[in-house]
Amino acid sequence: MLEQRKPITVAEAVQRVMLKEIPFKSESIHIEESLGRRLAEDLVATHPVPPFDRSPYDGFAVRSADTKTASRENPIDLRVTETIGAGSVQSVPVGEHEAARIMTGAMMPAECDAVVMLELTSEPEKGIMRIKRAFNKGDNISFKGEDAKEGTVLVQKGEMINPGTVALLATFGYEYIKVASKPVVGVLATGSELLEVNEPLEPGKIRNSNALMAASQIKRAGAEVKMLGKLSDDLEACYESVKQAMEEVDILITTGGVSVGDFDFLPEVYQRLEAEVLFNKVAMRPGSVTTVAHKNGKFLFGLSGNPSACYVGFELFTRPVIQRMMGNPKPHLPLEDAVLGADFTKPNPFTRFVRGTFSIQNGRLEASPSGFNKSSAVSSLAATNCFIVLPGGTRGFTAGDQVKVALLETTEGSEWSW
Amino acid sequence: MLEQRKPITVAEAVQRVMLKEIPFKSESIHIEESLGRRLAEDLVATHPVPPFDRSPYDGFAVRSADTKTASRENPIDLRVTETIGAGSVQSVPVGEHEAARIMTGAMMPAECDAVVMLELTSEPEKGIMRIKRAFNKGDNISFKGEDAKEGTVLVQKGEMINPGTVALLATFGYEYIKVASKPVVGVLATGSELLEVNEPLEPGKIRNSNALMAASQIKRAGAEVKMLGKLSDDLEACYESVKQAMEEVDILITTGGVSVGDFDFLPEVYQRLEAEVLFNKVAMRPGSVTTVAHKNGKFLFGLSGNPSACYVGFELFTRPVIQRMMGNPKPHLPLEDAVLGADFTKPNPFTRFVRGTFSIQNGRLEASPSGFNKSSAVSSLAATNCFIVLPGGTRGFTAGDQVKVALLETTEGSEWSW
Repeated sequence: MLEQRKPITVAEAVQRVMLKEIPFKSESIHIEESLGRRLAEDLVATHPVPPFDRSPYDGFAVRSADTKTASRENPIDLRVTETIGAGSVQSVPVGEHEAARIMTGAMMPAECDAVVMLELTSEPEKGIMRIKRAFNKGDNISFKGEDAKEGTVLVQKGEMINPGTVALLATFGYEYIKVASKPVVGVLATGSELLEVNEPLEPGKIRNSNALMAASQIKRAGAEVKMLGKLSDDLEACYESVKQAMEEVDILITTGGVSVGDFDFLPEVYQRLEAEVLFNKVAMRPGSVTTVAHKNGKFLFGLSGNPSACYVGFELFTRPVIQRMMGNPKPHLPLEDAVLGADFTKPNPFTRFVRGTFSIQNGRLEASPSGFNKSSAVSSLAATNCFIVLPGGTRGFTAGDQVKVALLETTEGSEWSW
Repeated sequence: MLEQRKPITVAEAVQRVMLKEIPFKSESIHIEESLGRRLAEDLVATHPVPPFDRSPYDGFAVRSADTKTASRENPIDLRVTETIGAGSVQSVPVGEHEAARIMTGAMMPAECDAVVMLELTSEPEKGIMRIKRAFNKGDNISFKGEDAKEGTVLVQKGEMINPGTVALLATFGYEYIKVASKPVVGVLATGSELLEVNEPLEPGKIRNSNALMAASQIKRAGAEVKMLGKLSDDLEACYESVKQAMEEVDILITTGGVSVGDFDFLPEVYQRLEAEVLFNKVAMRPGSVTTVAHKNGKFLFGLSGNPSACYVGFELFTRPVIQRMMGNPKPHLPLEDAVLGADFTKPNPFTRFVRGTFSIQNGRLEASPSGFNKSSAVSSLAATNCFIVLPGGTRGFTAGDQVKVALLETTEGSEWSW
């Protein structure tokens, strides 16, 4: 008996997934491991930056009042009290007509209010410095708090930690940081035709490219991978494997087996699991058979066995769940305007996600299909850094048309805006 | 005595670095570890994809000649020989007026030249399938080699491995892959004012943010980090540390100590090492004191002690060397056109690399300064995903001006085009 499935729109499908409660866990990690993780708490300035008035140059800290009459014709000489190196503090007060030699980054002496750069001074005799112009209060000082004031939220919870964030974490002494835990995503493949990557080709068989591809997409999305091997051809064994896998992971991905063929066991497995099937048909190409089920707070993503369809299904449905589990308020692929760089003449009954390559040309995004465009295509995926999103009900597109592109190789995200 | 340094242009400085011989090493790694690495050899299709003619649907493999007269009024019945599952091959020939039940991905029987989708057939009696329209030779077949022909270079040496590349590597049975080795980059900090991240703040001191920031930039650039601690305040010990470090790493970064202050030991260390100083002053802001030296095929990057200057110096000079060591033919930050999103009114004697945030607005790049813009600034770095490159000799810019931006959070690169 042939099951009749009712396709829903991509937007409706994404919504059904994202409206489920998505759990969030955090953990504490060392700063050296923090790059690329997402903050589980706001990064707050725990002290002003700089923490004290300091000199941005090598030179002399002076009392500006002492310099008021200095000029080329009437140079002023000041007695040098001491040298304040970076990291040191003054040991004696700087009195009238005195100055302190000061290094870049060193704390200003309390009595001084300006810095004179070394190259503007001379040393007429040992212990005396001479200047030939006046300085104003505040000249050449890096003021306490000018970079950041104490208590300011500098980076918000949910943001990804980049090298600049690491610099801030170090500045404020966060040796350990609370970040979102990485969800563990299991990958189970189905398909009697699948050989392992290290097996020689046989007639009728192909190597399993989807599992390793999905594993890489999981890593790119920031999560941990658990490779769970291949499902058996036996329904009962299949059910047991999926049930077991659900215990071990936060999210389960299967590739293949979601169609309506005689050997597509997953629909039956979902039923036995008593999982809620959120949808099993989406009005899109490729990936129309993508199925998402949900059970006890965990998602099962039934991705297509076709490489391109599997790839698209992951990015549209699994990636945002992973991102949301890590607290990203913008979990979806960023969707941007672009100019189509080449004709795409296929008529389009459903929304189409053409694997594309975008580049920036004179400040504008331009995107072209990245190659062979069947659901089963694998060769074009290596050149793919975006999906060209072509709406359904259209009769093909020509170079120069305005299109939307969803960007893949980016640390940015977007709210749902499709 | 105050050393007079002669600034050179950024382009000249980059050229002096990149014209040195830059070593390349490769290693063999497992496919599961390959994401984000760079191929050390071309990825060639070792067989056609698909490797055989196959069915893209669940249905029946037929001989199109048998279907020529089929219509709604005159349906044609074909005897079903067997079921060919994915991964299996036919066991009996398909004769005239016969068909084979075939699953998605299964190999076509030799005698058949079209596939009829299951939903277009009926089963008037067991072992018989009925169709109501004619099919043509080639209908619904995924042809051998249609995705990729044997011998085609699918991904070139030097390209970064992404999830699509992994799918291809798996397809062709590359369990182990030759990739560029990751250079080991050592980080040594200088500065008596520096506390470790886990030390409490003291008067006159700040925590060392540069070393951990540079470590993160090294990782983002794809290399390995070796944290080497802090240089001593003693010149002799300093020299010994640098000399020792040079033995242990492929590239050595120091932060701070390259200025002309009394405690800036690095110029003296380069001299004692008999390293060739490629430049020690660049006509740019921030980072004008950035120094690059070279000895026995290894680079020493003397980055500024100021966070923003250190950050910029790394991305302009160190990143491309790391990328080139990994075989990237486009080792530099991609430089793109953008619209300036906010005024930047400071006059500009030298080329300025303003830490910026870009976004895409209606398909165009728009970039604005990401915050406080001194060489010593650290707070703005977390929001930085580009440098706004403002040429020297200008008197400030206003919102809406066309500018160039160098992108930081991207897996793309560019040849030098500045």
